[in-house]
Amino acid sequence: MTSIDSVEQPALGVHSEVGRLRKVLVCSPGLAHRRLTPTNSDDLLFDDVMWVENAERDHAAFVGELRRRGVEVVELHDLLAQIMAIPQAKAWLLDRKITANQVGIGLIDATRAYLETLSPRELAEYLVGGLAVGDLPEDFRSPYLSLARESTGAREYLMPPLPNTLYTRDTTCWLYGGVTLNPLYWPARHDETLLMKAIYTFHPDFTGAKVWWGDPELDWGQATFEGGDIMPVGNGVVLMGMSERTSRQAITQVAAALFRAGAAEHVVVAGMPKLRSAMHLDTVFTFADRDVVTLYPRIMDAVHTFSLRPGDRAGGLDVVDEGTTPFVDVVAKALGLSSLRVVETGGDAYASERQQWDSGNNAVAIEPGVVFTYDRNTLTNALLREARVEVVTIVGAELGRGRGGGHCMTCPLVRDPVDF
Amino acid sequence: MTSIDSVEQPALGVHSEVGRLRKVLVCSPGLAHRRLTPTNSDDLLFDDVMWVENAERDHAAFVGELRRRGVEVVELHDLLAQIMAIPQAKAWLLDRKITANQVGIGLIDATRAYLETLSPRELAEYLVGGLAVGDLPEDFRSPYLSLARESTGAREYLMPPLPNTLYTRDTTCWLYGGVTLNPLYWPARHDETLLMKAIYTFHPDFTGAKVWWGDPELDWGQATFEGGDIMPVGNGVVLMGMSERTSRQAITQVAAALFRAGAAEHVVVAGMPKLRSAMHLDTVFTFADRDVVTLYPRIMDAVHTFSLRPGDRAGGLDVVDEGTTPFVDVVAKALGLSSLRVVETGGDAYASERQQWDSGNNAVAIEPGVVFTYDRNTLTNALLREARVEVVTIVGAELGRGRGGGHCMTCPLVRDPVDF
Amino acid sequence: MTSIDSVEQPALGVHSEVGRLRKVLVCSPGLAHRRLTPTNSDDLLFDDVMWVENAERDHAAFVGELRRRGVEVVELHDLLAQIMAIPQAKAWLLDRKITANQVGIGLIDATRAYLETLSPRELAEYLVGGLAVGDLPEDFRSPYLSLARESTGAREYLMPPLPNTLYTRDTTCWLYGGVTLNPLYWPARHDETLLMKAIYTFHPDFTGAKVWWGDPELDWGQATFEGGDIMPVGNGVVLMGMSERTSRQAITQVAAALFRAGAAEHVVVAGMPKLRSAMHLDTVFTFADRDVVTLYPRIMDAVHTFSLRPGDRAGGLDVVDEGTTPFVDVVAKALGLSSLRVVETGGDAYASERQQWDSGNNAVAIEPGVVFTYDRNTLTNALLREARVEVVTIVGAELGRGRGGGHCMTCPLVRDPVDF
Amino acid sequence: MTSIDSVEQPALGVHSEVGRLRKVLVCSPGLAHRRLTPTNSDDLLFDDVMWVENAERDHAAFVGELRRRGVEVVELHDLLAQIMAIPQAKAWLLDRKITANQVGIGLIDATRAYLETLSPRELAEYLVGGLAVGDLPEDFRSPYLSLARESTGAREYLMPPLPNTLYTRDTTCWLYGGVTLNPLYWPARHDETLLMKAIYTFHPDFTGAKVWWGDPELDWGQATFEGGDIMPVGNGVVLMGMSERTSRQAITQVAAALFRAGAAEHVVVAGMPKLRSAMHLDTVFTFADRDVVTLYPRIMDAVHTFSLRPGDRAGGLDVVDEGTTPFVDVVAKALGLSSLRVVETGGDAYASERQQWDSGNNAVAIEPGVVFTYDRNTLTNALLREARVEVVTIVGAELGRGRGGGHCMTCPLVRDPVDF
Repeated sequence: MTSIDSVEQPALGVHSEVGRLRKVLVCSPGLAHRRLTPTNSDDLLFDDVMWVENAERDHAAFVGELRRRGVEVVELHDLLAQIMAIPQAKAWLLDRKITANQVGIGLIDATRAYLETLSPRELAEYLVGGLAVGDLPEDFRSPYLSLARESTGAREYLMPPLPNTLYTRDTTCWLYGGVTLNPLYWPARHDETLLMKAIYTFHPDFTGAKVWWGDPELDWGQATFEGGDIMPVGNGVVLMGMSERTSRQAITQVAAALFRAGAAEHVVVAGMPKLRSAMHLDTVFTFADRDVVTLYPRIMDAVHTFSLRPGDRAGGLDVVDEGTTPFVDVVAKALGLSSLRVVETGGDAYASERQQWDSGNNAVAIEPGVVFTYDRNTLTNALLREARVEVVTIVGAELGRGRGGGHCMTCPLVRDPVDF
Repeated sequence: MTSIDSVEQPALGVHSEVGRLRKVLVCSPGLAHRRLTPTNSDDLLFDDVMWVENAERDHAAFVGELRRRGVEVVELHDLLAQIMAIPQAKAWLLDRKITANQVGIGLIDATRAYLETLSPRELAEYLVGGLAVGDLPEDFRSPYLSLARESTGAREYLMPPLPNTLYTRDTTCWLYGGVTLNPLYWPARHDETLLMKAIYTFHPDFTGAKVWWGDPELDWGQATFEGGDIMPVGNGVVLMGMSERTSRQAITQVAAALFRAGAAEHVVVAGMPKLRSAMHLDTVFTFADRDVVTLYPRIMDAVHTFSLRPGDRAGGLDVVDEGTTPFVDVVAKALGLSSLRVVETGGDAYASERQQWDSGNNAVAIEPGVVFTYDRNTLTNALLREARVEVVTIVGAELGRGRGGGHCMTCPLVRDPVDF
Repeated sequence: MTSIDSVEQPALGVHSEVGRLRKVLVCSPGLAHRRLTPTNSDDLLFDDVMWVENAERDHAAFVGELRRRGVEVVELHDLLAQIMAIPQAKAWLLDRKITANQVGIGLIDATRAYLETLSPRELAEYLVGGLAVGDLPEDFRSPYLSLARESTGAREYLMPPLPNTLYTRDTTCWLYGGVTLNPLYWPARHDETLLMKAIYTFHPDFTGAKVWWGDPELDWGQATFEGGDIMPVGNGVVLMGMSERTSRQAITQVAAALFRAGAAEHVVVAGMPKLRSAMHLDTVFTFADRDVVTLYPRIMDAVHTFSLRPGDRAGGLDVVDEGTTPFVDVVAKALGLSSLRVVETGGDAYASERQQWDSGNNAVAIEPGVVFTYDRNTLTNALLREARVEVVTIVGAELGRGRGGGHCMTCPLVRDPVDF
Repeated sequence: MTSIDSVEQPALGVHSEVGRLRKVLVCSPGLAHRRLTPTNSDDLLFDDVMWVENAERDHAAFVGELRRRGVEVVELHDLLAQIMAIPQAKAWLLDRKITANQVGIGLIDATRAYLETLSPRELAEYLVGGLAVGDLPEDFRSPYLSLARESTGAREYLMPPLPNTLYTRDTTCWLYGGVTLNPLYWPARHDETLLMKAIYTFHPDFTGAKVWWGDPELDWGQATFEGGDIMPVGNGVVLMGMSERTSRQAITQVAAALFRAGAAEHVVVAGMPKLRSAMHLDTVFTFADRDVVTLYPRIMDAVHTFSLRPGDRAGGLDVVDEGTTPFVDVVAKALGLSSLRVVETGGDAYASERQQWDSGNNAVAIEPGVVFTYDRNTLTNALLREARVEVVTIVGAELGRGRGGGHCMTCPLVRDPVDF
């Protein structure tokens, strides 16, 4: 296991979407994806079945290239394994996972006893990959297991698989100097945030982080928030997609928290049209350079924009409906730019719809003008290059099947500001 | 408004499925169903759009017939209106409904202020029917509302509609001398149980009820439990369908709680096949008389049965897999009967599938051998009558469109035991 | 059986949408609807399971009221029974239904032999209601039947059920002095048109009809055409909805045929938006009086209008894209009216969407200003009455479940022109 | 263009599933797949959007390896291009494609005129890839095109895309010395068979082929037949999956035709369970060697088997219901083998379901004991190798997304018998 002795770390904080990326959190594909089948993929909220060995290989290549270019990359299984070696961290997390509500009474002691036999690395595997009934060795079995075997969907597991951990972007968001611990939309994803809370609580590289908002141990009702909708673009501005997954109830709370702390001055809300392909803002709009964005016009043209600023009204916000002003214009102005250069999804009507679907606009920058995207979006990548953006490609044959690209697969932890 | 002065009440408690029904809770259709449209009915978890005026009329006729036959019927809107006249009850409930997580910050004060202008009866209407953005009068509006108007699904409401309150069976279950406050499967139904907790806490006819399990203010994770799966059949036995909606995590907790209190001795678990038409146990199996059940064989034949009894093992339960023994035989034996007489869904393969779909097996008894079912299930009703069961019909043209019948629409509060 | 001796008949022909309706074709619900179950209703293209006895009662009341008001009503089963008494008609139809491609080889002789034992009325029942494997008496069975029993969907039938015959509007259209025999969109509905061809060929009241276009014995490829999209409004104008079901390939052929025959001078095409609720033009737009239409604005506002007139170009049509001119204005002008009075679907956003779904705009007129609609659309009906339209209601509790109203359930055979 | 001068050809005919494969028909991915988008893929009947460049590369590698191993491979676009150089072939095909029912009147002359300007190779591209409205150059446009642009789904095309041509297996089947021209289940695939008829009629390498059954110019009603369900295994036996796509109406006709011609003596029918994953027999069962099959047990265990042999009854078939005898045993006996060795889909419950989905059992043999399968099915491939089958892998990252493997992508034209 990797040593966990804390070394001097840069202060965590993300100050732009395209400034120098210094440290990032990812999560490798693995056991959770080996559990996915055509019949359970809906329940587990993953779009397709992928060839996990190849997805692992392609993800490792992506991480390798990030490292080669000077980005420090930390990986979720590694972080979990590191804290599972800390007794109080392990106790804290298992006390919250191995409960009557999750594994069922009669199975608590045996499940916990089995998990105690595992190495921290093995335990981390099951925390992300799920513990199936069949994984429990003979010595730990009881008649209660027969009930579990007859149960449906995620209830048949003792710990459910969390395949969407692949998209570390969603779970927590660094917004300038602090972080949100996001209540995700689907109940089946709630435990992702619990794993992250364990890391933020116990991992020496993360303790002391300022939490703006969110706590996976509380019920947030309609206030759901997913990182794919959130972009701290700099200049005191945060963009937030208001979508099926990210609600006004959450957006206004986070905006108020940021304004109270003086951490931001302006939240630009993109009211997304009610379409499945417009899942998160970053599936149709990302930054590629200081003043360059790539976007999918057919959806972005239907966005209704609002501005939130600190105010004296009830709730502490000033809400402005931007009416017919295009989202891109509101963003440019908020950044103090005369305009943003726009790289649209490439190709004809067929090709651009295909590329949006294949995460063609889901770029992640590692510095101004250098982005990672999937190799398959050749037309959009060509247009980005024409706009003098350096495009580094990720092999998307398998990774792309979950409908998330480079932006979704990365949670920036340390990123520099840019000048506007 | 109905007076709320408490009169001498029979002790709440349900001691069988077919003993004399003395008091029952129902909920009239209304505003929540007027909100349903083809585009939002999936989000609001209701199968179809109904003609609400006629549904109200048919529900009133059903209630009238129950009363004419000596059953005391209480109605959810009435109970809510009665407690909304109690200041601390109103404060308790609105403190939990009008929060940043539900209505959104910036709208809390105005929403609460508007609700304070309403009569208890009007308030009860909105608590069940939902408060739409458009319901807020001009004087209470602010720029925050424009955000709400652009939101999707239930997020556009200030309080969401709860159309499934029509099915009072699901929300709470009287099991012998105590009650469960059920964590329902779908998040969109959670507030139904909160309304019931307010009633159990503040309504003079309900206070002092013994709660076996459940609390809508806590998060129950995978432990979900719906009354349509639960039947306290008498003789210390409770039947529990283990389905998509009612999990082993909940079943085992409730069984343990009942056993600990000495309230039951045997829980028979019906492991339901994984089919949409097998939603709840009571959609395919109900009691019509002391020893008569009506069931849909195509699904009941695929049930896998378990017995839970008090035990010394971890968790306090003894779990027995009943293997290939038919569910009906396990139930008969548990009741001390040599066998149960079975009335199958009537007609040929087409007709019986149609009648199961139209709640043909969803009978509710008001005394041994007297049941209410929908008029449209003429063939099953004829077979019940041949088995010397008196069948009183409910007009199902509209009520039946939500896929629940007489059993689903009633929550028995006081029911006598029967001898076996 | 009704006598089939031909009496003096008015000449068949439909010269408007609201002129005096003198003769109309309907089809009672029946056996085909008794076959519908939740698992086969998708295959059989019917939206819901209805209580057939009540649907029959409500349909009979509708027919009774039409007759009471002086409309001659003929019914599809009756017409079929009448021609099944004519040997050559029976041979013609069974030669086309009882084939290797439909019933399967090995079952042809036995099926035909069984059908020959039936009365014309019984045969008509099966022609519409379908002949299931189980309907074949023991004496006519062979080992081939075991193959049929294991087959899926409509293949398990010897003759498939045709539940959409309820909507006689779709199958054939009288457009002024001639008729179209429509190639319907779904292959499962093709045999509906074959039954109608038998009637037009052999029934003494129908022979000699001029056929503009269509023949169920030919393959029409993409050229599909359904009567719900077609309205001969008078003044030489025909409205045609271009929808999923009615294609430009068919519309242009029928327009050219009408122009060639001098039967019409102007076809106004309503390019329907690509939405499921916009199935046919008559689900969102019908005439209620000489200059009154009822329509659902949310869909009609998205219609793109074209005009087809006789022309010299290839194909013989002059095609004009009407651009942003509203459909209603193009129609008014085509009729020589300064404008049409518009009655929109009633109620707020919820109610109007519900009423459109419940066929609220699917009115059928029996004379100028007198229409039939479902009782459940109380708000739209009230608005029609305010516009001085007499509204006669049809009980829609069951009939409305197939998503078609009075307009869909009637195929006018003789209707007077109106003056504009 | 490849020269079309006919050289000495081996006689077309397929005499087993695993004998030496001498000549095979494939179809490269291409333009039709570039048309696929998330919104139109349902209409065009293709499961996913693929990266066409890579699919082309991987398909070329597959073809290259077939050739390297001595198989003569012909490709659909090539064959079409070759016959499009023959004036009467081009006229025959365009007369059937460019009709009022397909392109619409008013567009026939211009479309045909444009197609006449193309080279045979370009024309072949559009015949398979579809001709979109936007493909028509300015000079060939007319106002009729505006109607087409507003049309839905496949109606917006002048010739529809045929992406399922990738699966040449389905369209025509060589069964011993003759071929069937299959009526495919979905109307959107009908034109695939028309293209093949053009080739069989006009291409010098194919003329003179004996056609057992089928003709794309006729309407076959319920008698649909797809090659994925059909296997001429040798010894006078043909296996036929009776599925959603391949009906008893077709199976019995083809069996009777084969028996009449003396081309087969026994058809073994696999009555497939009614599950989406059991689309074709070859998705769950194929041959890998003379006496080795690979199969997916969870579906194959639910198959109900019938035997058809020549008989004296009506229809000329003897039908035997094989009852509970496993399909594999019936097949072994039919081949004169004591048993078949069975290689099941590899891995645990998760992995085997994943591999079946990824065409893990969809092997195509090029000689006894040598098969092609996708690389991603590593576990099933390992088991095949353990059974001493040589497994050559096809890169499945893109090709596999359409849910068909090596067996689906090949239509054997010449294959040797094997001894049993």
